[in-house]
Amino acid sequence: MKKLAILNGPNLDRLGKREPAVYGHATLADLERDLRAAFAGQPVELEFFQSNHEGALIDRIASLADRQFHGFVINPGGLTHTSVALRDSIAGSGLPAIEVHISNVHAREEFRHKSLTAAACVGVVAGLGLSGYRIALEFLAARG
Amino acid sequence: MKKLAILNGPNLDRLGKREPAVYGHATLADLERDLRAAFAGQPVELEFFQSNHEGALIDRIASLADRQFHGFVINPGGLTHTSVALRDSIAGSGLPAIEVHISNVHAREEFRHKSLTAAACVGVVAGLGLSGYRIALEFLAARG
Amino acid sequence: MKKLAILNGPNLDRLGKREPAVYGHATLADLERDLRAAFAGQPVELEFFQSNHEGALIDRIASLADRQFHGFVINPGGLTHTSVALRDSIAGSGLPAIEVHISNVHAREEFRHKSLTAAACVGVVAGLGLSGYRIALEFLAARG
Amino acid sequence: MKKLAILNGPNLDRLGKREPAVYGHATLADLERDLRAAFAGQPVELEFFQSNHEGALIDRIASLADRQFHGFVINPGGLTHTSVALRDSIAGSGLPAIEVHISNVHAREEFRHKSLTAAACVGVVAGLGLSGYRIALEFLAARG
Amino acid sequence: MKKLAILNGPNLDRLGKREPAVYGHATLADLERDLRAAFAGQPVELEFFQSNHEGALIDRIASLADRQFHGFVINPGGLTHTSVALRDSIAGSGLPAIEVHISNVHAREEFRHKSLTAAACVGVVAGLGLSGYRIALEFLAARG
Amino acid sequence: MKKLAILNGPNLDRLGKREPAVYGHATLADLERDLRAAFAGQPVELEFFQSNHEGALIDRIASLADRQFHGFVINPGGLTHTSVALRDSIAGSGLPAIEVHISNVHAREEFRHKSLTAAACVGVVAGLGLSGYRIALEFLAARG
Amino acid sequence: MKKLAILNGPNLDRLGKREPAVYGHATLADLERDLRAAFAGQPVELEFFQSNHEGALIDRIASLADRQFHGFVINPGGLTHTSVALRDSIAGSGLPAIEVHISNVHAREEFRHKSLTAAACVGVVAGLGLSGYRIALEFLAARG
Amino acid sequence: MKKLAILNGPNLDRLGKREPAVYGHATLADLERDLRAAFAGQPVELEFFQSNHEGALIDRIASLADRQFHGFVINPGGLTHTSVALRDSIAGSGLPAIEVHISNVHAREEFRHKSLTAAACVGVVAGLGLSGYRIALEFLAARG
Amino acid sequence: MKKLAILNGPNLDRLGKREPAVYGHATLADLERDLRAAFAGQPVELEFFQSNHEGALIDRIASLADRQFHGFVINPGGLTHTSVALRDSIAGSGLPAIEVHISNVHAREEFRHKSLTAAACVGVVAGLGLSGYRIALEFLAARG
Amino acid sequence: MKKLAILNGPNLDRLGKREPAVYGHATLADLERDLRAAFAGQPVELEFFQSNHEGALIDRIASLADRQFHGFVINPGGLTHTSVALRDSIAGSGLPAIEVHISNVHAREEFRHKSLTAAACVGVVAGLGLSGYRIALEFLAARG
Amino acid sequence: MKKLAILNGPNLDRLGKREPAVYGHATLADLERDLRAAFAGQPVELEFFQSNHEGALIDRIASLADRQFHGFVINPGGLTHTSVALRDSIAGSGLPAIEVHISNVHAREEFRHKSLTAAACVGVVAGLGLSGYRIALEFLAARG
Amino acid sequence: MKKLAILNGPNLDRLGKREPAVYGHATLADLERDLRAAFAGQPVELEFFQSNHEGALIDRIASLADRQFHGFVINPGGLTHTSVALRDSIAGSGLPAIEVHISNVHAREEFRHKSLTAAACVGVVAGLGLSGYRIALEFLAARG
Repeated sequence: MKKLAILNGPNLDRLGKREPAVYGHATLADLERDLRAAFAGQPVELEFFQSNHEGALIDRIASLADRQFHGFVINPGGLTHTSVALRDSIAGSGLPAIEVHISNVHAREEFRHKSLTAAACVGVVAGLGLSGYRIALEFLAARG
Repeated sequence: MKKLAILNGPNLDRLGKREPAVYGHATLADLERDLRAAFAGQPVELEFFQSNHEGALIDRIASLADRQFHGFVINPGGLTHTSVALRDSIAGSGLPAIEVHISNVHAREEFRHKSLTAAACVGVVAGLGLSGYRIALEFLAARG
Repeated sequence: MKKLAILNGPNLDRLGKREPAVYGHATLADLERDLRAAFAGQPVELEFFQSNHEGALIDRIASLADRQFHGFVINPGGLTHTSVALRDSIAGSGLPAIEVHISNVHAREEFRHKSLTAAACVGVVAGLGLSGYRIALEFLAARG
Repeated sequence: MKKLAILNGPNLDRLGKREPAVYGHATLADLERDLRAAFAGQPVELEFFQSNHEGALIDRIASLADRQFHGFVINPGGLTHTSVALRDSIAGSGLPAIEVHISNVHAREEFRHKSLTAAACVGVVAGLGLSGYRIALEFLAARG
Repeated sequence: MKKLAILNGPNLDRLGKREPAVYGHATLADLERDLRAAFAGQPVELEFFQSNHEGALIDRIASLADRQFHGFVINPGGLTHTSVALRDSIAGSGLPAIEVHISNVHAREEFRHKSLTAAACVGVVAGLGLSGYRIALEFLAARG
Repeated sequence: MKKLAILNGPNLDRLGKREPAVYGHATLADLERDLRAAFAGQPVELEFFQSNHEGALIDRIASLADRQFHGFVINPGGLTHTSVALRDSIAGSGLPAIEVHISNVHAREEFRHKSLTAAACVGVVAGLGLSGYRIALEFLAARG
Repeated sequence: MKKLAILNGPNLDRLGKREPAVYGHATLADLERDLRAAFAGQPVELEFFQSNHEGALIDRIASLADRQFHGFVINPGGLTHTSVALRDSIAGSGLPAIEVHISNVHAREEFRHKSLTAAACVGVVAGLGLSGYRIALEFLAARG
Repeated sequence: MKKLAILNGPNLDRLGKREPAVYGHATLADLERDLRAAFAGQPVELEFFQSNHEGALIDRIASLADRQFHGFVINPGGLTHTSVALRDSIAGSGLPAIEVHISNVHAREEFRHKSLTAAACVGVVAGLGLSGYRIALEFLAARG
Repeated sequence: MKKLAILNGPNLDRLGKREPAVYGHATLADLERDLRAAFAGQPVELEFFQSNHEGALIDRIASLADRQFHGFVINPGGLTHTSVALRDSIAGSGLPAIEVHISNVHAREEFRHKSLTAAACVGVVAGLGLSGYRIALEFLAARG
Repeated sequence: MKKLAILNGPNLDRLGKREPAVYGHATLADLERDLRAAFAGQPVELEFFQSNHEGALIDRIASLADRQFHGFVINPGGLTHTSVALRDSIAGSGLPAIEVHISNVHAREEFRHKSLTAAACVGVVAGLGLSGYRIALEFLAARG
Repeated sequence: MKKLAILNGPNLDRLGKREPAVYGHATLADLERDLRAAFAGQPVELEFFQSNHEGALIDRIASLADRQFHGFVINPGGLTHTSVALRDSIAGSGLPAIEVHISNVHAREEFRHKSLTAAACVGVVAGLGLSGYRIALEFLAARG
Repeated sequence: MKKLAILNGPNLDRLGKREPAVYGHATLADLERDLRAAFAGQPVELEFFQSNHEGALIDRIASLADRQFHGFVINPGGLTHTSVALRDSIAGSGLPAIEVHISNVHAREEFRHKSLTAAACVGVVAGLGLSGYRIALEFLAARG
């Protein structure tokens, strides 16, 4: 059984409420339900966590490492571009992580083109909408 | 009845204690009392919130949107210059916000000249001391 | 009796004609009429001046100092971002000044995010439309 | 009858006197005479204006808009690279403008490579000598 | 039947030969074989193209648009960071494109952190190895 | 008889197909036909060339020099902003060249404001649509 | 009796677990034990606090000021390079603070070379491992 | 008889009134009187001009060239750092000019360290107070 | 027998024709003849290749690796400063390469001071004219 | 017996004379006397060296390596921010070095925030006054 | 009797030999002779010093302070733009200094436009040839 | 007889001792012996000089010019990237110089990619190990 987490950072609790033209109408609860369905029957255990607090995300990442998770998917929201602490947390966990962005950050404001956290991750999936989460999880689940 | 919030970010709980030569002797409690007095008898409901936690501010802004406030005044303190997450939160709330700074940030260190959050607000009032809060609230109260 | 001036820089003579979607339909004459009405009966004397000439604005600021005005409100228009001479003029006048912008400059082009003149002012009001002028005058009128 | 203006900014009154190796021997008067000749018999009315004053150029552009000109050609001289006010003036006029430079600014000092005003114009003609003015006028005259 | 293309830019013909520690031992031929196998039986037609020539990639993208493909996956290699022409080509094709990088470019040299081409794409998949191609194709195949 | 060339760089083969709202509906073939018509009966020989390959453009410029052309008009497309090799090629040809852009590059993304190739040209015509080509040719044809 | 605090920021709870090759095997508990032992019998009272939350660190610094501590040692972790709010908090406390880094930040990534918080401190000790904490405390204890 | 001019730019009409701690108590009239006295009996004719208008300074420099002055001293005030037009005017006059600053601009704000106009002058005298004007005139008077 | 290649990039086919004051009168054919003469009788096999196409250079470098050359000399011309793809190609070939520039690029325009490709080479020889090629070949021939 | 050196760079011979408000009244001789006293009776041999010459500091560092010192403390003064040669010298010595600054360089001018030499050291102690030297020596003495 | 020094930095010993077209034919010995003549009979004692060694200049400046000189003139040559140590030395001497440059550094390469040392001086004289030294000395001699 | 010098800057006296993995085991004495052997019997006179002092290198370069050397080879070590004074010295000597670096500076830290001194040299040889010196000397010896 592989233990994988899905972490969402600031403002992602607003999915489905915030700018639906950009982010769609699905909520975080919809996402969780869909992902649980997608992995039903597979030897994968999923844990979901969202916080608007940088510190809570760091706490959780540390906890994942302590509880011997096999990896995690993270959408750090606005922290992507500003948080050295989160980057250090990902790197320090020793766990493989995939950074996910729902929209294509490269086609938005200049300050969203650079990711501080991506360097501590295995890779990045951006612009593929909510399916980015599933893709990233599948990649981690399939990883040796 | 218009519901308006006054949000204060990091270190503004120290008003009246921190560098009084710069920020004056009035405390946040004084500010609340004065603002409540100023709007007494007007069809305006005020809610006050201060936190040193970026995440708590984001949580509260989301809550304001959910509880159908009509707008808010925010002094993001040091987060003004560093928080993409807070900017996204303000923009995502869909509420009109006014950014307030007690001192004139343009006359301080170079890194305080740029505001990440202001682009998500209706406007900015800086350097007018505590009266900046009242001014901003009056503007929101009068807004159609 | 407090003597206060309202200075408008380049292109503000075009108010009401230029991009009404952005700046509204009120003209500078409307602004003057409304401000005179707002301060009618108060011990405040208002002087209005608009020029598209940097030099004329500097001349006028010097004149305000010589005629012992108590302060002024200034919307330097495009000079906000480029004029060291205007900044020096404001600083050299020894008078309290408030910088006003009708629109939220922080939400426009990058080169409008930085103000050279603001450092010489007491503070800045931006994005509050024409009411920014009244707010700034009230602040100066109330100042000890 | 189409009304078109030819505006020249700082130092262009020195044409034919200043560095003839770079700018040639023709004066601004020669330019006016040649352009009037070139458009003789065409349904085009030309107005010429030169000033070393940024403000005077802005005043004139506002006047062109008020007098319902159909467009103008402008060589902003050194203001090209420094004047946000002039840029705002061109944009605010709502008139089509063509920016003309006699020399190839891209082959001169680094600070001449960037134009602040060009973004408010329809286009730019640079390096084609005095014929740039005629070309720009023909373009405006032919424009629907 | 959906027509999708897989475009590879400079040096990707060297897959399996170049730095296998970084890029693995699979060749481009292996990739093609695996992808054809993965989509066997699905209503998807795949076309593969690799070139070290920027111009050839642009020619091919134009051809995809003319032949009414439904989208394409592109790994622009080193052109990612330097080619405005390729970016314009992707944008001009009107086709949805996904940018793929085998390695995590964000964890490599500073100049690889910025993508010129990504802004013209729907999204980006980086660091997921060769499976990034399959993921991107699946996304395009599933897209309405 | 004056021999002049019209060179078009990457993506200009897509004229009339790519973003017609920006670039209009005329194709490169239309442009050639119109220009040939415009110069019919004049002692001017026109040669047209388009390529998406930087190298092919450089090859052609060298060939123009060898075949003793009198000058050329070039729209380098996206290579304008990135190609030192093309700049060197233009400079090395010893031929007068005019850089043409259909749209006003100064009003587009920041990275399009700077031209590497313009410094090697006599001048630049930008934003005047397809008529920019004719204007540039006329200038070269009239040049002593 | 001098009251001194030892504050540790994000990820320092992972000491001894995170990258031991870089940070060693000692944990934060070991550090506390060793420091208490080192100051045993001295008129110094030590308080330890670690948090991954910027806000919690700011709360605590305010509390130290209120409880009249004589100073504190702080390792802000990744917040060193990004937090204006923490800097303001240190400056606003009015207490002498020493910034400590276990590793030599100057020999790591470029973005770690600059400290936002150090300007609000008395000084910095970096690269001396865990002994940096003891050194900083001794300095504060000895300070008049 | 050598004809030399002394030009003063924006805000220098405020000498003796503006920040006397920085600029001293002497006025521009004092300066003129002292300089006339210093050159009394010498074959030097002095002309004084001050303006807060960039355009008026440019007009005057052109006039100096037309009236065959032998050179001029200029303190461009805040225009030093921002005016390409003034730089072009000085260069275009063909006259030797010396740039004078009363205070040491290099010891003030960063944006005052760079002079756009100095490159068009023979040299610069800064920080020597009002005597800088006399020194510069003596240099021009003595120049062959 | 050691197999070594001499690769020349864009515009180097114009040697002897282009700006002879800078590059001399010798052509690429002269260079080949001289180099063949210089290595006559030595156990060295030379292959010459010039292209104005980045892609063709990359193709050739890949081919050199496949055909087990022992190294190559490359003058990337203008691609030196702009091509990440060429850099990757050199690095990916696994062959020792020496970058050669005929002129001293460090004494030319600022944008020629930086080489993207040099980091993938063993070293650089610049400014020694055509003899730089011979020197580089001798170095590679002598290399163990 | 451990051999340790204390190196002081430019202007540190002026300690006690130069700006005592910043640097205190103790001289370099006082520092030497105090440090010798502090290490009296310990198996540590101290050597002191001060020079205003970059080259002399480099010579001495080389000499320390040749004479098999165990490490050194260095306050490079103004060379901290400008000397690549000194950095190379420290790195090349193979000896552990601690960089010491008497004042908190991070709270001074921007150009003092960056240290070129620190990357070649084990760590940095800044702002702890003269006790920084003792602290650094103790660290080196205690190092295994 | 006022004691004043004239310090010349790197390469100024080559005056009269180095690029006479730029620096003239007079040598440093000529300069000394002329300055001694100019101040003959005045209560001024002059000391001359030239060195190509940064350290020797710093040593000398310290010595001037110790020997109670009243000020000095310094031409730091190339150190002007690079030496923080020399700047600190001038500032630390407590003596008034005037920075002199023979040529107009503002009209030369970009890296010569910025002076690190000028901020520690009273003022700067540049571009006035050798007479700059005399002017600076006269200023210091006349200073109260 | 041609007189040529070989100058080595800071830390090159450590050759063979410093980081032999990077710089090899040969010392400067080995280099001198090998170069003397290589030029034995040729009409070339060699002079060797190494110093860690910028000033001593400048003194020596001046001396080479005075003693009518025909050129020199220089490895400025860390001064390459920081010394304007050395650059001026090379340029002022009027002698042809070749800059040599043993390692490939372009493949090391970013700050080593730019050479201040190279612009004053004929050319640069980097990364060819100690043979770079011989190559550079041969070039100077062969130069007309």
